[in-house]
Amino acid sequence: MALNKKPVTGMKDIMPEEMEIRDYVIALIKETYKSFGFTPMETPAMESIENLSSKQGGENEKLIFKVMKRGEKLKLEEAKTPDDLVDAGMRYDLTVPLVRYYSNHANELPKPFKALQIGPVWRADRPQKGRFRQFYQCDIDILGEPTNLAEIECITATTTLLGKLGFQNFRVHINDRRILKAMAALSGFAEADYDKVFIILDKMDKIGVDGVKAELLESGFAPEAVEKYGQIFDGLNAAEDRLAYVGDLLENKEAVDSLKEITASVEAVKAVPFELMFDPTLVRGMSYYTGTIFEIEIDGLNCSCGGGGRYDEMVGRFTNLQTPACGFSIGFERIITILLDQGFKVPGSRDRIAFLVEKNLPSEKLCEVMKEAAALREKGHQVLVNVMAKNKKFQKDQLQTEGYADIREVFAR
Amino acid sequence: MALNKKPVTGMKDIMPEEMEIRDYVIALIKETYKSFGFTPMETPAMESIENLSSKQGGENEKLIFKVMKRGEKLKLEEAKTPDDLVDAGMRYDLTVPLVRYYSNHANELPKPFKALQIGPVWRADRPQKGRFRQFYQCDIDILGEPTNLAEIECITATTTLLGKLGFQNFRVHINDRRILKAMAALSGFAEADYDKVFIILDKMDKIGVDGVKAELLESGFAPEAVEKYGQIFDGLNAAEDRLAYVGDLLENKEAVDSLKEITASVEAVKAVPFELMFDPTLVRGMSYYTGTIFEIEIDGLNCSCGGGGRYDEMVGRFTNLQTPACGFSIGFERIITILLDQGFKVPGSRDRIAFLVEKNLPSEKLCEVMKEAAALREKGHQVLVNVMAKNKKFQKDQLQTEGYADIREVFAR
Repeated sequence: MALNKKPVTGMKDIMPEEMEIRDYVIALIKETYKSFGFTPMETPAMESIENLSSKQGGENEKLIFKVMKRGEKLKLEEAKTPDDLVDAGMRYDLTVPLVRYYSNHANELPKPFKALQIGPVWRADRPQKGRFRQFYQCDIDILGEPTNLAEIECITATTTLLGKLGFQNFRVHINDRRILKAMAALSGFAEADYDKVFIILDKMDKIGVDGVKAELLESGFAPEAVEKYGQIFDGLNAAEDRLAYVGDLLENKEAVDSLKEITASVEAVKAVPFELMFDPTLVRGMSYYTGTIFEIEIDGLNCSCGGGGRYDEMVGRFTNLQTPACGFSIGFERIITILLDQGFKVPGSRDRIAFLVEKNLPSEKLCEVMKEAAALREKGHQVLVNVMAKNKKFQKDQLQTEGYADIREVFAR
Repeated sequence: MALNKKPVTGMKDIMPEEMEIRDYVIALIKETYKSFGFTPMETPAMESIENLSSKQGGENEKLIFKVMKRGEKLKLEEAKTPDDLVDAGMRYDLTVPLVRYYSNHANELPKPFKALQIGPVWRADRPQKGRFRQFYQCDIDILGEPTNLAEIECITATTTLLGKLGFQNFRVHINDRRILKAMAALSGFAEADYDKVFIILDKMDKIGVDGVKAELLESGFAPEAVEKYGQIFDGLNAAEDRLAYVGDLLENKEAVDSLKEITASVEAVKAVPFELMFDPTLVRGMSYYTGTIFEIEIDGLNCSCGGGGRYDEMVGRFTNLQTPACGFSIGFERIITILLDQGFKVPGSRDRIAFLVEKNLPSEKLCEVMKEAAALREKGHQVLVNVMAKNKKFQKDQLQTEGYADIREVFAR
């Protein structure tokens, strides 16, 4: 019987060239974040279906790959809905598993706990070019640190990593959910409407202040509130120092002072040139954020390459352990795609040496080759021993494209 | 709503101490096998349910975690069996995915293709101590190499790896399915009965020749065949050179000569002390093996830590591409368990330095600490910056158990 050759719909096989880059990037991520004291950890790929359906995952909960019950627990006749047949699902992010892990092991873990997770997640999204149903996420999170030290470390560690990957002149947009809310309140929007307002505000970079105002009006918000909101952003656009401008506007300066501290510290220690930019239109989709939010934009790539923020209430809500938290997730797959597109070569690759041994080489001679290969490997070379093909020229061309510049032929006599 | 704190039944969270060892071992595996020219590759965690149910997986096919169809394709009312609701499953090994990958990409891959796969597999086995339903496998396979070079490289690479992990004085048992079959034929067993005979033969190390004979008789095999079979193994046990003894017995010496060549070459190049031992009672469960088979036993641990062999027919059977193949799978989880039990310390770990900064340290002072931390990280240290806790003694004790020997306190004045 023949196999179905293709991977399951929407998922992909990783070819050797890409795998080499992925392995390199993962090693660099681990090395860099570990130097900041982050601790690698891992959870199973599956979580109980209840944990995945707890509403924390937002839209992602509609995209769960569900795992069927097994054995006696699987009762097709009694099932009223398909969910009656399910007891687990593939994780759609690394945040739900982190929170569960933390609540399960809090007593054994350092305080604060600086977690590093790299691993696949699964989402049954509509298949589309460049987006896959299994993809890696790479998250750092600091659980249990209420001060800005968490933000400063998350941003510094992540930008240090991007620098090591060769990225420069990127921008870290930074904002605070408390500022977003205060400006909406100041304009007169009702608290219940904030999320709707922010979804429209998020389009500012594409449609401008007038576009945002028009959409707010279309959505039925009060013209006075929309007008006031527009004035604030017009003022921001004209301001020399936007953060100072917001500080003058708001009565409670806590969030502004917090951003000032984070900005000053990150600027003081940054290892690569990048811009940390207060962006009062930065929203970040997940409504669980409670304070600072940030997002990375790389020049010339019109998209976010990572983001995160403070979410002080989520862990407590799910575990009854009140735990301040701050995290940063880099767009692992996007970074790999960029590096592949740039023709990135993994630095410091070993020299590659290939021995082509004639077919039916006497045993003693083969042993000699194997010994020489072992000695070369010991010295740090990558050494391949292959049987010489009939079409030797083709074989050598192939080996050269695989990076074997040094090809040594061994004949029986 | 509260989360279910525990991982799903039979799966486990990986704690920081274990994770450190796993990361180290995985890095060493990749480095070592890559030095032999093996190429890392990866496939999705799921395969189509047809591929997983193709009978190649033997008993494992009963243990599949099945993934439910989604959207319009999921029709509960029309389902006659639960399988009507399923379109994919979690892989239970790395061999089925390898064969599918190879048949999908053969034209783009080197010939022979030396694959390295490390990753989780899933089996809904009965939960028991030390065995989990998600666990890592680590396989190397050489596809497209018909000569003993494949066996020699698989054994040499794997034993080199074990040496680097600090293992010594282990044994590699080696046999050939062709010898197993020839000895069964010589004794007069019918070919259809070989697998049953071999299952009993496999118990030789526990029950001895007499025990094997007794069980064969109990199973209803002809007394003459059982007697002859017993004589062969009695002769083997008495023989000085078991391989020579088998050579004298058999008319077709091909398999014996092959084992001689493999043994001579591996012995000649081995980098660590281990014993390569012809073991005529070695069976290996999977019936897809066609030639050489091998298994690793580590002294004092009464169990196999890996094994493999030649399976020249499987790829062709599934893909219609006749492809000789030979592979070696190490018992990744078992090796991790051994290292954990031995209190293994990852060598060359970075120096760990912790700064404890007083709460509400002025921004400028915090920046100084962050700069110093950055400089130390640049020099290769692992540096943690934490806010000083009220119970500082407890905090410092904790940090010391985490390996932070150098703890520096920073006060506001």
